[in-house]
Amino acid sequence: MTPKTVSAIALSLIPIVKPGDRLVEMILESVNETGIDLTNGDVIVIASKIVSKTEDRLVKASDVKVSKRATVIAEKNGFDPIHVELALRECVEVIRSDGVLITANQSGSVCNFSGVDKSNAPNAEYVLLPKDPDQSAKGILEELVRETGQKLAVVISDTQGRPWRKGSINVAIGCAGINAFKHNKGKSDLHGRTLKRSSICQIDELAALAEPLMGQAGERIPVVIIRGYEYEEGNETGVNIIRPRDEDMFR
Amino acid sequence: MTPKTVSAIALSLIPIVKPGDRLVEMILESVNETGIDLTNGDVIVIASKIVSKTEDRLVKASDVKVSKRATVIAEKNGFDPIHVELALRECVEVIRSDGVLITANQSGSVCNFSGVDKSNAPNAEYVLLPKDPDQSAKGILEELVRETGQKLAVVISDTQGRPWRKGSINVAIGCAGINAFKHNKGKSDLHGRTLKRSSICQIDELAALAEPLMGQAGERIPVVIIRGYEYEEGNETGVNIIRPRDEDMFR
Repeated sequence: MTPKTVSAIALSLIPIVKPGDRLVEMILESVNETGIDLTNGDVIVIASKIVSKTEDRLVKASDVKVSKRATVIAEKNGFDPIHVELALRECVEVIRSDGVLITANQSGSVCNFSGVDKSNAPNAEYVLLPKDPDQSAKGILEELVRETGQKLAVVISDTQGRPWRKGSINVAIGCAGINAFKHNKGKSDLHGRTLKRSSICQIDELAALAEPLMGQAGERIPVVIIRGYEYEEGNETGVNIIRPRDEDMFR
Repeated sequence: MTPKTVSAIALSLIPIVKPGDRLVEMILESVNETGIDLTNGDVIVIASKIVSKTEDRLVKASDVKVSKRATVIAEKNGFDPIHVELALRECVEVIRSDGVLITANQSGSVCNFSGVDKSNAPNAEYVLLPKDPDQSAKGILEELVRETGQKLAVVISDTQGRPWRKGSINVAIGCAGINAFKHNKGKSDLHGRTLKRSSICQIDELAALAEPLMGQAGERIPVVIIRGYEYEEGNETGVNIIRPRDEDMFR
């Protein structure tokens, strides 16, 4: 008997992308070179950075005028003032700015520096998160489905820190073709009792599943195919993961 | 060319365990029935609940005397008083008790109800988390290595909620034979610059990787083998994931 297996398959050899590059074309070429086919039920996890780059979410350091507010926060904490400035521009709320810079960004996601990053960015440039990651996922999915004729799903991932626990993990910031959550309410447990509630953030788990292959350094594996995962479908997307302000116990 | 792949393989048919059952023996029988062999580099992810049960961390509802403090919290929130009582006994600190019951448990982990759970517990019983999950992982690993002669690692997982983001995900509460983190400091990024810091909680990612197969209902897959993941070794374990109180920005 073949055991039930979920596999994460690394697509390799995607070149360094630049604004305007056709991401889906590059993914399909890489699929081809890797010697696999995209097939019904595959989930394509894509690192936000490569999406940001093709969407031209890059900012040159020399183009950034640092505000007084950013200077104050940067000086107090020993942060890069340009990095702080961009984080402030990208956010709708500063959650904490003492020793850390934790913000809620425009899509509502709470993270360090509004997700603005310098690593894996071209020299003297900063990478902002995609403007609307769910929309990006939707666009990529539509093109992938059109090209392959297969039923697929797309998750856009980002590596983020979190409260309470040290170390970052990959989480999902957008998705299409897959529901954000897997709802177990109504299912029976081991002892035949009905679960009253239990929602798993399945796209966060798929993002985490892809990270070991993607890595954080120069691995050049920004796209990972998840195969064999029986996911729940639905209309909840990345934006639905964010706890509404009035339900959030930590602001 | 075979693409780089990380696979999560479900071990099936582990029977409902009870206190005193020999977990490692059951895992090895299941490995055998599944038709695979444990092999060098495999990470065995084990749901905390099955570990708790074999360690007799079960409490009968009829054995619990509910304190005044637990009664007050239960009445205010409409919670089960016995559940609250056990959560209070298991914790070292109550973080919040309005609408939620978030505590820091004895191993320092911050979670709902100190991780005390009713689902997948025998009728009228509650399951507490393993007393020392790192120690449990160590014991299981030693026995597995002795029996198989392979170089393996063990991660004990639990499904937990988190601040900011809706839905639960699987996280690691203990490990052995694998480092809790993967440290990327000093590695080069895509553009040749050295990463100043970047630590990934690799055991949390491996726990998340196992959840899609384990499920939360009656799947009866409490053990998942991760194959093909090139993990970092070291002495950091589950307890090192917990942010020390004075570094935690959310208490």
